[in-house]
Amino acid sequence: MTGEFEPLTQSVRRLIDVTIRSEVGNAVAAEAKAHIDRAVELLSADLMPGSYGMRTADDGRPTVLGNVLIGARNPVAPPLVIHHEPQGSVYTEFELGAAYEGPAGHVHGGVCAMILDHVLAAPAHQPGQPAVTGTLTVRYLRPTRLGQLRAEARVDRVDGAKTYVVGHIADSDGATVEASGVFIRPRRR
Amino acid sequence: MTGEFEPLTQSVRRLIDVTIRSEVGNAVAAEAKAHIDRAVELLSADLMPGSYGMRTADDGRPTVLGNVLIGARNPVAPPLVIHHEPQGSVYTEFELGAAYEGPAGHVHGGVCAMILDHVLAAPAHQPGQPAVTGTLTVRYLRPTRLGQLRAEARVDRVDGAKTYVVGHIADSDGATVEASGVFIRPRRR
Repeated sequence: MTGEFEPLTQSVRRLIDVTIRSEVGNAVAAEAKAHIDRAVELLSADLMPGSYGMRTADDGRPTVLGNVLIGARNPVAPPLVIHHEPQGSVYTEFELGAAYEGPAGHVHGGVCAMILDHVLAAPAHQPGQPAVTGTLTVRYLRPTRLGQLRAEARVDRVDGAKTYVVGHIADSDGATVEASGVFIRPRRR
Repeated sequence: MTGEFEPLTQSVRRLIDVTIRSEVGNAVAAEAKAHIDRAVELLSADLMPGSYGMRTADDGRPTVLGNVLIGARNPVAPPLVIHHEPQGSVYTEFELGAAYEGPAGHVHGGVCAMILDHVLAAPAHQPGQPAVTGTLTVRYLRPTRLGQLRAEARVDRVDGAKTYVVGHIADSDGATVEASGVFIRPRRR
């Protein structure tokens, strides 16, 4: 019951991009707006209250399709796909276009921080025992150009309930932004 | 030549929200997708190459309408409106809905970091002399519920080329996330 929304979401991602980059005249923009408003009306005929939250898929597994970074149903999400490596580190490869711009031609520094928050949390989580972010520190080495990027993270050390994680975002020339994070695993009761 | 795209962008923001929250059946979702694809086609008839960047408005002032946080033409942007107070501090009041979700019902911690990156940079900038972010440290005090929020920032101290800024995001019960940042003003040549 969720898969049919993924092609729709991809279409909305394309729409976000061309909404920013279009140079058509007023009449064409108005015609496009009419189509968008009709789509909103159609989709609004049956809306869940509030946000997507965590929902159970047909196979019983929890899904977070509305997540702003990994959600297949959230058009804001690139979406990131996090790969877990056998040694416990994680990486993700993704492309950021016009929708994520800060300085001209570059990824907004805040977007880099947002992605690093999510990627650094990934190796800190244990199955059934999620960690909460305590502190995240982001160091900007140089501007990050829009385009194809990679982020990775690994656990640096564990000290009691605290897990220290390090990671970075890189383009083809190497790291552009580094980060370290402290994640706290709530005590089991 | 840019104002006509703002109502269109608002429509796309509504579309992002209902794309996440809709529970309509396959046939209606497909009909909505057809309208979205038609809008994409119309807007793509004339596209600027690359991203929006910084463009000059009719009155000669630079505009950053594509910015992921403040861009009036970027549907991903809430958009933030940054208010500068006479003493140099800044604040912004905004609402975050389903599109910015991380943990169920709550703002993604990375979104908080992204917003704080932008808001803390604001008081560090001087007219004609923008500062670049060196380091941003974010401390998560408690979960931030989706809904109406406020962020603020002020310069803590200036030491040579470095400007130290502090700030936070708050809901109606007080601060949920605190941040400090070091911003570097490139030397004048």
